[in-house]
Order: sequence, then C-alpha cells, then structure tokens
Amino acid sequence: MHPVLKQYFSGKINLSAGHEALIERCFKLKHAKRNEILVQKGSIAKNIYFVIKGCLRVFLVDDSGSESTRFLIFENNMGTAFPSFINGTPSLAAIQSLEASELLVLSRHDRDLLLTEIPGWETMYRIGLEQDYIASIQRIESLITMDSKARYQVLIDTRPDIIRRLPNKIVADYLGISQETLSRLKAPRPSKA
Amino acid sequence: MHPVLKQYFSGKINLSAGHEALIERCFKLKHAKRNEILVQKGSIAKNIYFVIKGCLRVFLVDDSGSESTRFLIFENNMGTAFPSFINGTPSLAAIQSLEASELLVLSRHDRDLLLTEIPGWETMYRIGLEQDYIASIQRIESLITMDSKARYQVLIDTRPDIIRRLPNKIVADYLGISQETLSRLKAPRPSKA
Repeated sequence: MHPVLKQYFSGKINLSAGHEALIERCFKLKHAKRNEILVQKGSIAKNIYFVIKGCLRVFLVDDSGSESTRFLIFENNMGTAFPSFINGTPSLAAIQSLEASELLVLSRHDRDLLLTEIPGWETMYRIGLEQDYIASIQRIESLITMDSKARYQVLIDTRPDIIRRLPNKIVADYLGISQETLSRLKAPRPSKA
Repeated sequence: MHPVLKQYFSGKINLSAGHEALIERCFKLKHAKRNEILVQKGSIAKNIYFVIKGCLRVFLVDDSGSESTRFLIFENNMGTAFPSFINGTPSLAAIQSLEASELLVLSRHDRDLLLTEIPGWETMYRIGLEQDYIASIQRIESLITMDSKARYQVLIDTRPDIIRRLPNKIVADYLGISQETLSRLKAPRPSKA
C-alpha cells in the first residue's frame, strides 16, 4: 500500500495484511498534468481521487461560461464530484488538476467492494462522511451569513495555505467574491501614522 | 413502533420484532408548540428529530440579531443541528418548531446504540447521510451560481409546498433573498395585452 495512504488510514482502522493488499489493488496510481480535466461537466464521475501531491478543483461552469469553485482537494485528502459519483447522474461540476498532481484513484466498484469486504471500513467511511457533511454545512453558513471580509478572514484563520498557494482568481471564486474585492482585502492596511 | 416510523423504515431495512421494540424505546414522542425553540444557539444539540407532523426550522442568528434559515425539516424527515450533534460542540444554529409539531426524538446515545445493535442500520444511515450531503452540495451550488430568480424557480419546481405553507419571511430567508425580492418574484407577471 502506498505509504501516504497507509499513514492516512493509520489510527482510523486496523487492517490485516490481506486487507492492505486489497486496498493496494483498489487505489490505482495516476499522474495528472497541470490544468488537466479529470471529470467533464455532464459526464459521470466514476472515481474518488486521493491526492498524494498537488491539488484538485471541483468547479461549476454556468451557461455563460463563468466558473465557480465548489471546493478544493489538497494533499492527504480525497474527494470527487459527489452527487454524480453516488447517484450515477451527469455531473454539474467538473474536476480539474490545478497543479501537476499525483493521485490514487478509487472506482465506484472498488469503493463498494471495500465497504463490503473490510470489517470496520463502513464505520470509518461513515465518520469521514459526517465530517465532510459538516464542512459543507459550514460552507453554507458562511455563504448565507458572512460578508466578503468575514469569509476571507475565516480562510486566513483556517487555511492560509490556500491563499498563498493558489492564483487570486481561484481564491476569489472559492470565496464567492470578485477578484477586485479579494485584491482589496489582501492589500496591507494603510498605516495610521 | 410508531406507524409513521415503520413506514419510513420499510423498504430500507429488514427489522426483527426485537429490533422494532428497540427502535420504539429509542425514539421518544414529543409535542412541540408553535415557535417553540428546541435547541438554543450556543447549546449542544443532543437529539435528532423525526417529524411526524409539523415543521422544524434550523436557523442562524448573527450578532445583530438577524436570522437566516439554513434548512427546513418537514413530515417524514429527520434532522438536527448536525455539526453540534456529531462533534458535541456549541451549536451555531438554533432549531425552532415553526408549527405545533409532533416529533420522535432520538438522543445521541440511542443513535449510537442503534448503529451498533441493529445489523444493516449503519448501511441505511450511511446511504441517508450520502443523500443529505448531496442535498447540501446542491444548496451550495445554488447559492454560488444562481441568482434570486433561478433559486425561486428551483423551489417552485421541487418544493412548491414550502412556498404555499410557510410565511414569506421564512421562504425569503431560506432562499437568501430579501422579502421585497420574494414578493416581486411571487407577483403574477403583467399581461402583455
């Protein structure tokens, strides 16, 4: 099993050697180029992506072609266009590799296999899902109750790496604010002297 | 077991008589008055609520006292202030019974008991959780990509009962738009003649 994945599961679940071998067969290594599209809008998301290195963006494109970032997946996290992956419906969101990325790819079939074959896997998955759901609730709360400045402040407090690492366009998009507003928020405050 | 609950679980899980008796002991009947607060902001959400009759509102109150409805729970559905319920943290959201409601109340302890005691319960719960998570993702998508008119149209198409049943203030709040905008959207279009 890839050492990064082994680290990810350690403390979450006790795995036998047989189960580790099964996991290794299910998570398949893939290299994605910078800006490579992994899931097209309108297609079906067939995989979950675990990011070893790099960053994925799950984003929406409206009819006029303008993009909105729904969320970002960084190292040691996994994700996908979840509604499409679970329900097998055409995805509203697309997935793009923002940087040259090293990924472990888990198909829907293999996800279901791990749920049935490994004791404790479903509990681990359910607990992870609860936290993903909580993160999405907190995202809704920030969208409906916070202004641009408050949302930017939360991002600085919780994920300063996002602001440092990604282009302004993506960060503004993720916050649901304009690039102009973001530049104003990022500018050092004028000195009082 | 309450017949409404029996109906809710039918087709989702096969229950023995012993498991039905356990579920009956875990879900406790409660009547809530119109406008009764079930969970205060800042307290810990200790229960999941299944609505037999009535409607609950999960809402946020900001520092200036203004309210935003995060979601609504109608008959034959269950919900709570989920981040607080799962993580045991003070709830940002409050829960209010918008109408005189008849509820079945499941504590955190009893939720955990059902997960461990009833075979298949965790799978059923996990599948329900996936759909709740998908609904929250769709809510995020509508908040970041749709304007007021589009959000109102989605609500008419998917949940016209919400618009008919609830006061304008709550509907506007739920859509994240002003009451004035909602009134304008609800007004019949001027005839072209």
